[in-house]
Amino acid sequence: MNELALIASIRKWCRTAPTPGLIASIGDDAAILRPRPNHDLLITTDFLIEDVHFTHSSLSPADTGRKALARALSDIAAMGGAPTYALVSLALAPWTTAAFVRSFYRGLTQLAALHGVSIIGGDLSKTGKFTADIVVIGSVPRGLALRRDTAQPGDILYVSGPLGRAASRNFTDVPTPRLDLAPRLRRKATSCIDLSDSLALDLHRLCLASGLAAELDGPLPVAPGATLDHALFGGEDYELLCTLPPGIRPPNSLVRIGRALPGRPGQVRFAGRLLKPRGWDPLQNYTLR
Amino acid sequence: MNELALIASIRKWCRTAPTPGLIASIGDDAAILRPRPNHDLLITTDFLIEDVHFTHSSLSPADTGRKALARALSDIAAMGGAPTYALVSLALAPWTTAAFVRSFYRGLTQLAALHGVSIIGGDLSKTGKFTADIVVIGSVPRGLALRRDTAQPGDILYVSGPLGRAASRNFTDVPTPRLDLAPRLRRKATSCIDLSDSLALDLHRLCLASGLAAELDGPLPVAPGATLDHALFGGEDYELLCTLPPGIRPPNSLVRIGRALPGRPGQVRFAGRLLKPRGWDPLQNYTLR
Repeated sequence: MNELALIASIRKWCRTAPTPGLIASIGDDAAILRPRPNHDLLITTDFLIEDVHFTHSSLSPADTGRKALARALSDIAAMGGAPTYALVSLALAPWTTAAFVRSFYRGLTQLAALHGVSIIGGDLSKTGKFTADIVVIGSVPRGLALRRDTAQPGDILYVSGPLGRAASRNFTDVPTPRLDLAPRLRRKATSCIDLSDSLALDLHRLCLASGLAAELDGPLPVAPGATLDHALFGGEDYELLCTLPPGIRPPNSLVRIGRALPGRPGQVRFAGRLLKPRGWDPLQNYTLR
Repeated sequence: MNELALIASIRKWCRTAPTPGLIASIGDDAAILRPRPNHDLLITTDFLIEDVHFTHSSLSPADTGRKALARALSDIAAMGGAPTYALVSLALAPWTTAAFVRSFYRGLTQLAALHGVSIIGGDLSKTGKFTADIVVIGSVPRGLALRRDTAQPGDILYVSGPLGRAASRNFTDVPTPRLDLAPRLRRKATSCIDLSDSLALDLHRLCLASGLAAELDGPLPVAPGATLDHALFGGEDYELLCTLPPGIRPPNSLVRIGRALPGRPGQVRFAGRLLKPRGWDPLQNYTLR
């Protein structure tokens, strides 16, 4: 199967009903979009690489497709947006079969359909390790995107659900992006980030970006079967971490875990000690000389 | 150097003057854009993978960065657009050094600055072969994007410059995206595609998309040092191939090479024979079972 034949199959797998605002999709040099008036656009891109983000033996082909898209959808949720379009680029490995690619797209397009996302483009190539790069474009009412650099001292810290589950199951789960929460956080949350790499590391990032310190003072919601270590440092939970001003009632299901404080930017205290910003690092065990 | 430290360096290398419409750039879960009124958005994504699109020994690090971006810019030119933003995702190879990454970004950001493109995001990871995935977002006045599926029977075929140079030099050149031509083709050309993979293959694609056949009837502009075979099948010229209605005067520098005809979609005749749609295929020598 050459590139033309594979693109023809992919177009078929990705076919969706006509989408308002989508002028041209897969098949030209670029996709053409007509942005929605009074909305800002969000754009994010995420690699999913064999033996870095998944192993061929521990994740089914369909779940590999789902996980690739879910990671990028979670970024849109963290910005308070709704996802609209995705581009899917694949570099195939020597072991990749047509059946794998078909199942990968089946899983990915199922998740895309669930969230009303159209696949509008991508690229194809080959390499040593199977590599997916997923671009997701989202939309948010003008001026209402949530950011990580806008938390205020005194804000209360919340997470959207129990933590540590992914680490306790050796990262074989497909994460659920918290897109349900995103619209309910707009106009309420002062900042937001998704917990992709770990509570300790992503909270450090939010505090660093906002120029604040933080203290974890509530009991952490630890997922059944997970340890406190999994919840603090495990990563891949894809829950949202956000801040709300004190006195503002959070949407249901948010759990208070602490507060933002003036102090050394990025410094987080937990149980009376400084918390190391440790978590999932895609360059872990990699030495850049 | 870990991910946080590398991201901090990249933010510094990619810093540009404030850009209208860019609300938030590198550093959050997604970039935030405010689209220009009365413009459509173009989006394209291109891999540049070691030993597929370049070899470490034959291209300097800065030229590797330039080439990665140039490929995607050429897609925007083919759509008649102006590039505005790019996202740069890198998966580093075991051999990649900090000096390589710095030079890669130097080359890439020089080319970006030349075309007024801001780098607004990306991703970082590691893998076996150095992999760049470049997303470029472009803008075009509403309704004026050029497409490959809109050529009409009787239209005249043009190319924007001599062909075969890249193949004759073993693909060690950095291509020049024909962004200069894009605005002059709007409202004139009935269709357009960039010659990334070869005249024979990309003309086949344009004809297939437009439901037409074509005939090459003019002398082909063959680059000095290149053969006719290089010009027909070589690829990586990144000139534009477009159609204009008969009687419409083309912008200077376009060379007439033939015409679009009713007939079997995708079929191209040259010198009295059918031309094989042969050219650069990223899945060449790859068997997808």
